[in-house]
Amino acid sequence: MSTAPVAPSATATPGVEPFDTVDLIRVKRSSGALSTEQIDWLIDAYTRGYVEDAQMAAFAMAVFLNGMERREIRDMTLAMIASGSTMDFSALPKATVDKHSTGGVGDKITLPLAPLVASFGVAVPQLSGRGLGHTGGTLDKLESIPGWQASISNERMFEILADVGAVICAAGSGLAPADGKLYALRDITGTVEAIPLIASSIMSKKIAEGTSALVLDVKFGSGAFIQDIAQSRLLAQTMVDLGKDAGVTTSALLTDMNTPLGLTIGNALEVRESLETLAGGGPADIRELTVALAREMLTLAGLPDADVEGALDGGAAMDTWRRMIEAQGGDPAAPLPVARETHVVTASSTGFVTRQEALPFGIGAWRLGAGRARKQDPVVATAGIELHAKPGDRVVEGQPLFTLHADDASRFARALEAVEGAWTIGSEAPAVSPRVVERIS
Amino acid sequence: MSTAPVAPSATATPGVEPFDTVDLIRVKRSSGALSTEQIDWLIDAYTRGYVEDAQMAAFAMAVFLNGMERREIRDMTLAMIASGSTMDFSALPKATVDKHSTGGVGDKITLPLAPLVASFGVAVPQLSGRGLGHTGGTLDKLESIPGWQASISNERMFEILADVGAVICAAGSGLAPADGKLYALRDITGTVEAIPLIASSIMSKKIAEGTSALVLDVKFGSGAFIQDIAQSRLLAQTMVDLGKDAGVTTSALLTDMNTPLGLTIGNALEVRESLETLAGGGPADIRELTVALAREMLTLAGLPDADVEGALDGGAAMDTWRRMIEAQGGDPAAPLPVARETHVVTASSTGFVTRQEALPFGIGAWRLGAGRARKQDPVVATAGIELHAKPGDRVVEGQPLFTLHADDASRFARALEAVEGAWTIGSEAPAVSPRVVERIS
Repeated sequence: MSTAPVAPSATATPGVEPFDTVDLIRVKRSSGALSTEQIDWLIDAYTRGYVEDAQMAAFAMAVFLNGMERREIRDMTLAMIASGSTMDFSALPKATVDKHSTGGVGDKITLPLAPLVASFGVAVPQLSGRGLGHTGGTLDKLESIPGWQASISNERMFEILADVGAVICAAGSGLAPADGKLYALRDITGTVEAIPLIASSIMSKKIAEGTSALVLDVKFGSGAFIQDIAQSRLLAQTMVDLGKDAGVTTSALLTDMNTPLGLTIGNALEVRESLETLAGGGPADIRELTVALAREMLTLAGLPDADVEGALDGGAAMDTWRRMIEAQGGDPAAPLPVARETHVVTASSTGFVTRQEALPFGIGAWRLGAGRARKQDPVVATAGIELHAKPGDRVVEGQPLFTLHADDASRFARALEAVEGAWTIGSEAPAVSPRVVERIS
Repeated sequence: MSTAPVAPSATATPGVEPFDTVDLIRVKRSSGALSTEQIDWLIDAYTRGYVEDAQMAAFAMAVFLNGMERREIRDMTLAMIASGSTMDFSALPKATVDKHSTGGVGDKITLPLAPLVASFGVAVPQLSGRGLGHTGGTLDKLESIPGWQASISNERMFEILADVGAVICAAGSGLAPADGKLYALRDITGTVEAIPLIASSIMSKKIAEGTSALVLDVKFGSGAFIQDIAQSRLLAQTMVDLGKDAGVTTSALLTDMNTPLGLTIGNALEVRESLETLAGGGPADIRELTVALAREMLTLAGLPDADVEGALDGGAAMDTWRRMIEAQGGDPAAPLPVARETHVVTASSTGFVTRQEALPFGIGAWRLGAGRARKQDPVVATAGIELHAKPGDRVVEGQPLFTLHADDASRFARALEAVEGAWTIGSEAPAVSPRVVERIS
């Protein structure tokens, strides 16, 4: 439709606020670009609460549908960093290296990875988030460990980094608060999957965290925010460039997220699988990706020849895990919570699993209680899906294919609806490709 | 960009809420259509507060950019009516007829029109709103009259309708509350100017008000929400059809909103001009439109031959105005407030005003304080712009062209910036076209 021209339309308060929020929304609504000053103001005013959540939600949807120029994305990243305090790990007598994944179904890699890398004397400050979109949140997973606390002070974080080396905790509210607000808002407003918003959100937080090196795990495929590998590559390159511009040594691995990662989706289930990996076992793809990311992180930290597999097989990574969990009040020896109800789905024929779509399984786990519908909703620690076969595996008719876990059996119906048709059993073994497809730096 | 497929993505709460808000936002984000059940739920859940403002804002922006099918618009209208109570004027011993304008710059027609029509013994229940987008709100205008109250009880409204015949008041919160919420939200989120949202908002309120007949003043041109006459015609036809489907005799006039209506823009200034019109004077275009709408309303009420001009010139309309204002606590004899500061702009050459753009003058008046930037902001009763010449008028170099009114002189600079280049003085008298262009029924 034809509408009134996009013009400065409102009065704002001259001398008090330099821009009017509705004006800026209208610019983006019409596919225009905001100036650096406008973006700085928008983010600052949103942080202060002058720009309301509803206004930012409308703006985010306009960005989703109309995009942002590269310069706008950089401005937005810098404005979000400027919205709060920044951290500085340069006083630590260790190199620091951080990792960030764009999120996927069953992606629990942070859990074995952080202690694994830290076991080589490198500091891994891993400030993590909660569930966003159809992917799980690292903090949600760790909170299924009895006693474990996500929130710690900066002082305590430094102590643990100096002592244990690895910390996985909630980003303090002082760090890029604009991103914190916007991240929660996007989650509930259907505006998660936009490159400009993903890139600026991730990189503002990571740059503000003050790490000296950063490895990005950028996913593509049906279970990732972005399906298309070319778009994922663009996201990866945008973030690598943003990092370098800010003085952070940054590289990215492009990884395949078409099938669920590992054999578990859901908070406590994924912790269990992480422990198996730290013990030198675990599913092959979890080990592959953990090892690849650890090598990349250690290379950026100056240790390209570290014996990563040895640290998993020899127990060094597990030792660091136990100390890391204890340092935040968790009991690494306590049994993990288990769901009250389970429901098993069996193979309807004999053959090979040729297809297993990540997204429907992610949605299924959400519907069982592993994810949240609204930001204030709790997650259910025990809920999720346990796979018994992966693509390439041979199955026999009647054999369990996967098990649903929930505390409330009434949830099974909608979860089964979500996963319906999400797998195929064929007569020939499929080619199974590696998770790591490309490196971008 | 390519994103993950639009799939039911969140868990919601099975057995409690049948849909997930983010799912529905994603459908519209991808240009899909929502089912009747989904729209019913969305509007109901928004009214209850389960769907948050931010979620509705993202949805509204998606509707703005991706549109809605005709069936969705009807569903949305009915859902908003169902969100609250409805009124019923059938017990009144008079025909009822209502009027709604889609809003324009300087549009104060409701003020003279309601008492004019009521002076013929017809009931005019005129439930009005506050400033939305770059156009003023009728209640904001009337509130510049000392003592006048916008909020009255339904019982009092019936009494005034039976006695005086005309009521201009705020819609009670019980009437289409979903629309009330959404109307306020659209105003601050840059999602005002979308046909599906305009049509469903207007018609839900008007149908819920229980009037037996309705005349719509649908505007096109630079000062209207919709510039293009074809789109305005579509909006008008959509609303006329919605009205008829609901059993309300509905017609529409398509009217030109390229130039400001009358000679004043701003709350108290427009009340003054309305009084001039009620006294049989006032600018020619205000009288033209007031008379045309009154004839249309009286025709729908069964009085096609009423002497409308006689009621203006003979004082019957003014008498009804005084009683209408007094019935809501206003003092019709009290002096209207006057701005502390004025700034005069003069003609830079001698000739004819050939162009006077409504939108920039509307924005200018907003910036002087006549409109609001956020829903909680107050408006300044005295602020606005007084035009001294209209298209077709001859002006002499140095003669005042228009005067800015404000309580705070610091506002003049940004208002002047808004109106810069918004008029032309040429050597030949332009053709001046009538306001009313077309009738749709």
